Amino acid sequence: MNYFSSDFTLGILGGGQLGKMLLTETRKYDIKTHVLDSSADAPSRLACNQFIQGDLNDYEAVYNFGKNVDVLTIEIENVNVDALEKLEDEGIKVYPSAKSLRIIQNKGLQKEFYRKNNIPTASFDIFASKRELSQAITQGKVQFPFVWKSTRFGYDGNGVKVVRTTDDLMNISDTECIAEMMIPFKNELAVIVARNPKGEVKTYPVVEMEFHPEANQVEYVICPARISEEVAEKARRVALQVAEAFKITGLLAVEMFQTQDDEILVNEVAPRPHNSGHYSIEASYTSQFEQHLRAILNLPLGKTDSKVAGVMVNLVGAEGYAGNVVYKNIEKIMAMDGVTPHIYGKRETRPFRKMGHVTIVDENVSKAREIAQEVKKTIFVISE
Amino acid sequence: MNYFSSDFTLGILGGGQLGKMLLTETRKYDIKTHVLDSSADAPSRLACNQFIQGDLNDYEAVYNFGKNVDVLTIEIENVNVDALEKLEDEGIKVYPSAKSLRIIQNKGLQKEFYRKNNIPTASFDIFASKRELSQAITQGKVQFPFVWKSTRFGYDGNGVKVVRTTDDLMNISDTECIAEMMIPFKNELAVIVARNPKGEVKTYPVVEMEFHPEANQVEYVICPARISEEVAEKARRVALQVAEAFKITGLLAVEMFQTQDDEILVNEVAPRPHNSGHYSIEASYTSQFEQHLRAILNLPLGKTDSKVAGVMVNLVGAEGYAGNVVYKNIEKIMAMDGVTPHIYGKRETRPFRKMGHVTIVDENVSKAREIAQEVKKTIFVISE
Repeated sequence: MNYFSSDFTLGILGGGQLGKMLLTETRKYDIKTHVLDSSADAPSRLACNQFIQGDLNDYEAVYNFGKNVDVLTIEIENVNVDALEKLEDEGIKVYPSAKSLRIIQNKGLQKEFYRKNNIPTASFDIFASKRELSQAITQGKVQFPFVWKSTRFGYDGNGVKVVRTTDDLMNISDTECIAEMMIPFKNELAVIVARNPKGEVKTYPVVEMEFHPEANQVEYVICPARISEEVAEKARRVALQVAEAFKITGLLAVEMFQTQDDEILVNEVAPRPHNSGHYSIEASYTSQFEQHLRAILNLPLGKTDSKVAGVMVNLVGAEGYAGNVVYKNIEKIMAMDGVTPHIYGKRETRPFRKMGHVTIVDENVSKAREIAQEVKKTIFVISE
Repeated sequence: MNYFSSDFTLGILGGGQLGKMLLTETRKYDIKTHVLDSSADAPSRLACNQFIQGDLNDYEAVYNFGKNVDVLTIEIENVNVDALEKLEDEGIKVYPSAKSLRIIQNKGLQKEFYRKNNIPTASFDIFASKRELSQAITQGKVQFPFVWKSTRFGYDGNGVKVVRTTDDLMNISDTECIAEMMIPFKNELAVIVARNPKGEVKTYPVVEMEFHPEANQVEYVICPARISEEVAEKARRVALQVAEAFKITGLLAVEMFQTQDDEILVNEVAPRPHNSGHYSIEASYTSQFEQHLRAILNLPLGKTDSKVAGVMVNLVGAEGYAGNVVYKNIEKIMAMDGVTPHIYGKRETRPFRKMGHVTIVDENVSKAREIAQEVKKTIFVISE
């Protein structure tokens, strides 16, 4: 198959920042792309060959879009899977497959998949409604504290809640949900696995998500994770096991807990480029976006080692600001060695909106981590 | 000045591969761009905010284009400088300046500029026509062998010829020209200098252009150059001297000869991202394209050190092929560690057309050079 400067067309469902960074790679290889997104101002509007505005959850929109491409991929999980199934039936290559996407879209099915495939994960129960969950609590089948998760459409902490008392139950939505045992973990880790149709598989180094000591929010993604080689090896093994179980094509980002006694438990996965892999653009021999492209096009996978250590900081809208975005002090962070801001191209900021990220690279991971702290103290995403 | 996700507009004269790679950086920073190029299929047609088709040598086309941007830059020297001068008068920021571009566009003026500024360069004479040159030869003022160069619009060996005998004179064009003393050199080197309006200056490491032993053509650009620290230091010093003499804003690529007795002589310069800096995309902390952007926007310059060694190989159309391009064996080179192809997006190949390049990075420069040789033996730019 000739992908380069040819008529071959890659379709991307979703036009957000992940799509935008993927387009950097399709441009590098001169691979033709179509992008579908509901917003006319989507970050991926530029740099694709054709932008189509449409609802990713609409069967017709996804089906009609997919009919005109050779390979179809996603940059967001929340898309119409029925349309993907139909497209697969009609011979379009869809990566990740409709089957794995259907499992991953539903946290209940995802957890059951881990159980069935002997993949270590926190124990859990599934409930069809809030009422069923409450009954189970009353009957003593579920005990406080536990982690409540909506089975559908949760992301970035949305649809996830720690429940410690009956009072905490008040504010959760009435949806199908899981109650998961709370894991007192040492570290939250992630590993990105790449796999192509011919079965070639590579894992990236283990990264560490460092949380803010008070706000329960990831502050830094650090590569390599500051953990023992033994734990790192185990985390990579578990991530590989998950990717093989899904027979994933493309990337699979596997988020994991390192427990107090150094067990690895899978938290959740994303079958696409992932926030925990952004560091790879500057730090790795092959960025996760190039790797995703290589994988879904059945090209040889690139080297996943790092050239240098990398730390990533998300740029989110500051509280109290909404409107035309201003990246206050961006010049100051650009004066620091090894600092690269990525601006996603969303014109309007609002509190906690993901507006960009900053990568800090250095030969020494501690040095990179130090500079990252300076970056975080310096730049503010505010409005005019 | 707020450049990021704002109404600020950067204009780029020229829409070739250099413009395309610059657009990767404007997308990363979400900086709005307009591109002017004569070809509707220019590689930079995608990923800019507005593409305008027009002749870069036409006063009106360049002037009208420039009136609608805040900062104007180039990716090719051969543009209408009168229009740039007018735009500067009207307050548009033009980098490089019309003044330096006028000198650089003409090899005679460029060489006189070096002489005037005590910049070491091969000795030369300027002639208004072929007839004047012939007279000087007859009178013994110019001796064989010498290097003939047309003062205008020479690039990639075009408009340059080694003249050893009267017979060699037959095929040269009748234009204003220079006759330059032939320099028996050990190495051809290049240094990219970045300079911003506030006067901050940085140099990239010295790269080496390795020539094919028979065909007199650059085969590999190698960073770092395999030369002594002393010679490297001298080359960087000379490059800085040239950039300061031009008071350049943006990048200045300085091509130099290392003579048999380790003198450094300036050959020629380009006030823009340059083929000798392509390795920087993968190997450097800051790619030359990001650096050019930082420089012309008066942002802090990025770190110019390398993360790893880099070797660059140009992908040019193979002899005997013309038509829809095929990158034969591209999968094979992508299976090699640290190998990244860049496909410029020209649909049609023809002999010697620059269609792309490949960067090979490794911790070890000799290893990278070895893999580069494998790459060169493996990939072929042919037609369907």
